[in-house]
Amino acid sequence: MSATTPNGPRVDGRTAEQMREVRITRNWLDHAEGSALIEFGRTRVLCAASFTEGVPRWKKGSGSGWVTAEYAMLPRATSTRSSRESVKGKIGGRTHEISRLVGRSLRAVVDMEALGENTIQLDCDVLQADGGTRTAAITGAYVALADAITWGKRHAAVPAAREVLTDSVSAVSVGIVDGEALLDLEYREDVTAETDMNVVVTGSGSFVEVQGTAEGAPFDRDELNSLLDLAVGGCGELSEIQRAALEETR
Amino acid sequence: MSATTPNGPRVDGRTAEQMREVRITRNWLDHAEGSALIEFGRTRVLCAASFTEGVPRWKKGSGSGWVTAEYAMLPRATSTRSSRESVKGKIGGRTHEISRLVGRSLRAVVDMEALGENTIQLDCDVLQADGGTRTAAITGAYVALADAITWGKRHAAVPAAREVLTDSVSAVSVGIVDGEALLDLEYREDVTAETDMNVVVTGSGSFVEVQGTAEGAPFDRDELNSLLDLAVGGCGELSEIQRAALEETR
Amino acid sequence: MSATTPNGPRVDGRTAEQMREVRITRNWLDHAEGSALIEFGRTRVLCAASFTEGVPRWKKGSGSGWVTAEYAMLPRATSTRSSRESVKGKIGGRTHEISRLVGRSLRAVVDMEALGENTIQLDCDVLQADGGTRTAAITGAYVALADAITWGKRHAAVPAAREVLTDSVSAVSVGIVDGEALLDLEYREDVTAETDMNVVVTGSGSFVEVQGTAEGAPFDRDELNSLLDLAVGGCGELSEIQRAALEETR
Amino acid sequence: MSATTPNGPRVDGRTAEQMREVRITRNWLDHAEGSALIEFGRTRVLCAASFTEGVPRWKKGSGSGWVTAEYAMLPRATSTRSSRESVKGKIGGRTHEISRLVGRSLRAVVDMEALGENTIQLDCDVLQADGGTRTAAITGAYVALADAITWGKRHAAVPAAREVLTDSVSAVSVGIVDGEALLDLEYREDVTAETDMNVVVTGSGSFVEVQGTAEGAPFDRDELNSLLDLAVGGCGELSEIQRAALEETR
Amino acid sequence: MSATTPNGPRVDGRTAEQMREVRITRNWLDHAEGSALIEFGRTRVLCAASFTEGVPRWKKGSGSGWVTAEYAMLPRATSTRSSRESVKGKIGGRTHEISRLVGRSLRAVVDMEALGENTIQLDCDVLQADGGTRTAAITGAYVALADAITWGKRHAAVPAAREVLTDSVSAVSVGIVDGEALLDLEYREDVTAETDMNVVVTGSGSFVEVQGTAEGAPFDRDELNSLLDLAVGGCGELSEIQRAALEETR
Amino acid sequence: MSATTPNGPRVDGRTAEQMREVRITRNWLDHAEGSALIEFGRTRVLCAASFTEGVPRWKKGSGSGWVTAEYAMLPRATSTRSSRESVKGKIGGRTHEISRLVGRSLRAVVDMEALGENTIQLDCDVLQADGGTRTAAITGAYVALADAITWGKRHAAVPAAREVLTDSVSAVSVGIVDGEALLDLEYREDVTAETDMNVVVTGSGSFVEVQGTAEGAPFDRDELNSLLDLAVGGCGELSEIQRAALEETR
Repeated sequence: MSATTPNGPRVDGRTAEQMREVRITRNWLDHAEGSALIEFGRTRVLCAASFTEGVPRWKKGSGSGWVTAEYAMLPRATSTRSSRESVKGKIGGRTHEISRLVGRSLRAVVDMEALGENTIQLDCDVLQADGGTRTAAITGAYVALADAITWGKRHAAVPAAREVLTDSVSAVSVGIVDGEALLDLEYREDVTAETDMNVVVTGSGSFVEVQGTAEGAPFDRDELNSLLDLAVGGCGELSEIQRAALEETR
Repeated sequence: MSATTPNGPRVDGRTAEQMREVRITRNWLDHAEGSALIEFGRTRVLCAASFTEGVPRWKKGSGSGWVTAEYAMLPRATSTRSSRESVKGKIGGRTHEISRLVGRSLRAVVDMEALGENTIQLDCDVLQADGGTRTAAITGAYVALADAITWGKRHAAVPAAREVLTDSVSAVSVGIVDGEALLDLEYREDVTAETDMNVVVTGSGSFVEVQGTAEGAPFDRDELNSLLDLAVGGCGELSEIQRAALEETR
Repeated sequence: MSATTPNGPRVDGRTAEQMREVRITRNWLDHAEGSALIEFGRTRVLCAASFTEGVPRWKKGSGSGWVTAEYAMLPRATSTRSSRESVKGKIGGRTHEISRLVGRSLRAVVDMEALGENTIQLDCDVLQADGGTRTAAITGAYVALADAITWGKRHAAVPAAREVLTDSVSAVSVGIVDGEALLDLEYREDVTAETDMNVVVTGSGSFVEVQGTAEGAPFDRDELNSLLDLAVGGCGELSEIQRAALEETR
Repeated sequence: MSATTPNGPRVDGRTAEQMREVRITRNWLDHAEGSALIEFGRTRVLCAASFTEGVPRWKKGSGSGWVTAEYAMLPRATSTRSSRESVKGKIGGRTHEISRLVGRSLRAVVDMEALGENTIQLDCDVLQADGGTRTAAITGAYVALADAITWGKRHAAVPAAREVLTDSVSAVSVGIVDGEALLDLEYREDVTAETDMNVVVTGSGSFVEVQGTAEGAPFDRDELNSLLDLAVGGCGELSEIQRAALEETR
Repeated sequence: MSATTPNGPRVDGRTAEQMREVRITRNWLDHAEGSALIEFGRTRVLCAASFTEGVPRWKKGSGSGWVTAEYAMLPRATSTRSSRESVKGKIGGRTHEISRLVGRSLRAVVDMEALGENTIQLDCDVLQADGGTRTAAITGAYVALADAITWGKRHAAVPAAREVLTDSVSAVSVGIVDGEALLDLEYREDVTAETDMNVVVTGSGSFVEVQGTAEGAPFDRDELNSLLDLAVGGCGELSEIQRAALEETR
Repeated sequence: MSATTPNGPRVDGRTAEQMREVRITRNWLDHAEGSALIEFGRTRVLCAASFTEGVPRWKKGSGSGWVTAEYAMLPRATSTRSSRESVKGKIGGRTHEISRLVGRSLRAVVDMEALGENTIQLDCDVLQADGGTRTAAITGAYVALADAITWGKRHAAVPAAREVLTDSVSAVSVGIVDGEALLDLEYREDVTAETDMNVVVTGSGSFVEVQGTAEGAPFDRDELNSLLDLAVGGCGELSEIQRAALEETR
């Protein structure tokens, strides 16, 4: 948990560099090899990791594994209902884009050879959305992934001796609202942000992804630097929360 | 809550006419006009009711409203992962069938004229499946529906004076396992049942739907009668649990 | 043929427990291994059974066979034209639901081990609809299935010595119209029915499926019992008509 | 009916310039505004014409009508079953192509202004296929179309005084098999034809469509001429059969 | 190049039997095994031939190869933008029809046994459309195909000794505009043509496809003959241009 | 044109901060309101801008316009052929993602109120791919967009007095290959890059998008800074090339 007394200047009383309260409930599901319900304030994402032996056809015989992810949102996660993508018969661009981002972010900290010819599929389903769903998904999926790897080792599918995870990974959104750089935007801030950036950072502080978009006016190098500073700080906190969650006995 | 000491002869220690523990968490979501997380043992279904003014084209000008439902299952609700229907690009027959069943069941207790030209859309998403997901969905959706109607009245979209709900409605599965009629099958029982029946019953004890299927040997009239007796009893309990949940202050 | 002088009180002059005239034209098609054009009054369904050696992947090596069904309606089977599902690019919920029902009903009377690793696919295409299309489909498909099994035996794909069919199966719709239980609803009755039930019964009188739905007011146990009585009687007649059709020399 | 004693040299005993027996059963359907079951030997196509007032958006206000067609084949029309296009979720190229051909052929004999702002939709469903399904579809659809126009006049949707049909239209396939030009190919001939041609001809003997394809060796001008001669003769016979069918009292 | 001084009576000054300027730019692409940008006046089609070893499943073990084609149009090839078929999620009837035509036309001049178990896939993408896109596609695709076969021989996938191409093939559109037969219609002529015909002819002057359609009044035998004469002449010119293009050193 | 003597250390002889030769052919298409064929070395993208009066439903009455983009790749743009998305029936995640990026990038320099209720649709079709297709698309689309706006002013659909474009926009890819930051990666570099970044920059040097991805090892702040420096330099050059292209008389 990171937030305490909401008395700063933001819509919900936070200060510019303050995250919302973050909660990770590990093993929220009974069937999945790893799972976590992660909350960034009112944003709630259910992350499930499914471990299966074998790899997709194009990796067969390579000796190394695969990690992939799908992100989706329940129709009433948002303040007005959206149509189901299954009913529309196709996946929207935003869903596709975030699924790919989550997969890439997790693969950045996995040693595929150590994983062996096994596949871990992450499912990140947004049960409630209030900004930052993709960053919550990455942060929670890491925890589910770690548990699924442990499961794989316990069931002898993955060699116990090798370290599959090379680092941890978390993500946070930052943005410029009314000219000020803010950490961990909630929805009301997100829609008014001039610049919106999602940053994925490893536990040791390196970048995995930096995705900044000018929604209003283009941004300059100084603004970019302020946003990156905030993001690195926020991911440091998230990294601690992940570590704490994974240390609890199951 | 219905189950207490699990010491009967069934796989989880229940007696033949005993339901699993049922829990309803009302208002699990912040945005939806009505919502309930319902649990039948390890089965967990998130039910959200979305209230919108206006009706589909084919009801415009009729003066009466519409209630519809969509049922879906998260990919890792089950013990092995299933592909997302959004990714496959089409909805499976089972999903279609259950969505239609949930919608019909709820419409059976709604006075569409009293609702006026408003639409309530129910979304029932199975977060975890352990048998009885469609009956849990109906039972939970009723609670979300009731809250959405209250919301409509409070926001003056629905005339406060008229009773929109003509009765309550709940559902339970029953089946014949090893020759014995059992109430509220969990997954391990469901897969071995010779006959499987879903029964939807109003609060006053009448039938809305009776769907019995011989999975193995056909069933005779006596077996059918035993199953109906069990179901009516189970729905009586569910009806009480619904009433209790709706009486809590929000 | 079951109906003779239409002078009862119903829209077409039948009595409450009277079926429409039922006709089965066996081998309506030249190519199919089994086929039947079945008519329940003006409802006409063309049922074709396709026998193929081999089974779907998930049954390979099991030693047992598979029976599956697809139901569909020609666009102008109904009084106003409906769009083709092939043009819409997806199958509707109703179509899915009925296809599944037909498949389950037929599988209930097939000994899959006796069938061996062979697949029989039933296609039930409604050429003209006037109520009761799904029950006509089941009843006609049974005849096509029986012929396809005979074909399989004659072509040595199925061992001749074993009985593949454990019983016959037929289906009929029943419903409550203006408070009265009626057998074999035609379309005009169907749309005004308060309760509508489809019942699938074996030749020996056991239930395979019971699907009752309150379209208007919920129904009570007595009504349910009256409907079941009517359905069992109707299926008895259908079972005779099937037997007679199958006894004709091809 | 055109064929009588099958003692010619072809696979079914016909002579080169002999058509199969052609039968048209008008009003095979009870609901459609026009319908015909047409048979060219074992090829059977059910043609239904649906009359609706109004035109597609792009013709609104033009004062003229529209005629369109959809062609499809039941899965077991053929000697081995094909998958349903509705199940595959898309229409194949061949289906598309034939639907467009049927529509164009019929529009060639309709005075759209005389039809007024009305739409006639033809559905041609092949119940059994033995070569020549598209030409049977065009020939049968013309009869259904004529009846639907009569219906439109009788119901005052179309001005009775104007002639909507400018001519009749029929179609036949011709081809070169073993170096010889043959009329009205059945399936066994069709698959071995070196050249295959479908010709659509008006009652007065002009061409609406000529579609010739070299399946094996390219064809020369003399062969093309022989095929056209045969086709014009065959369509003359079909035109007589159509006229006779339309003269029967309904 | 065929056209020179545009001073005839047609919209662009050509005479009735005059083609537009035709240009073939061989090897417009760096990656494809064969490619050609073909221009018929303002119509521009990019044709790419992809050579792959192996054949589709249904030809495996046959010892012979396969040639197939896909035709498509960029959204802004036309004077007003059309939606992308990829975005609509399905291919239109016209696209399907032309793809099939291009594939058939090329296969007519390929000795599949000489090609061996290899597949050549042609992609014909219309970059700009001004009438005659399908005929330009066939004519250009032949050049790309010839180069891909040469590539296959040079890379030892195809036996060098055998002649894979049995002839060349080209295509042209002809039509009747204001009662006059014209060669190689541009768009403004195409939309007003009473009859429109696409003719595919081998280098030695035989027909591969003849597709004539009455857009307005049906056409008679004399008109058909005039159109065929023009088409044979036009394809003779195209055949020369193809030969010249293929003789240039790469 | 930016590259001259290729004698640097990179695969094609460039230096780390050297772009490939860039060519813009304005008005490559005759029908589109604006168009440009842009080449970054062997990468060729055809950009077409379609101007239509009116806006999508959700912007009607807002007084402001809309700019949107679709990106796609011809099947044989790449060294091995990819399937068409239209044939697969759905658009892939990568296509979706890039289309969205192109649209956002262009909107960043458009004053939607000055555009008025008009829509400009950009189509960027990759004819040949050799790395950097999305950045070439953005850079070329800007030129097509500028011409379409001029067209709109000339045809009085857009008020001539207001400046619709607030700045120019271009994009370039940068990446770390073998530990070194390189500008404008071609395909062989792209596949081996440890980090890959696409940067969209305005003519005045501000950022519109920064999308950096660690393909191999995560990257640190210094590396990020080097990449941004290179990108800003490259976009400066592109901005000049755009300006020069737009200054040529049409």
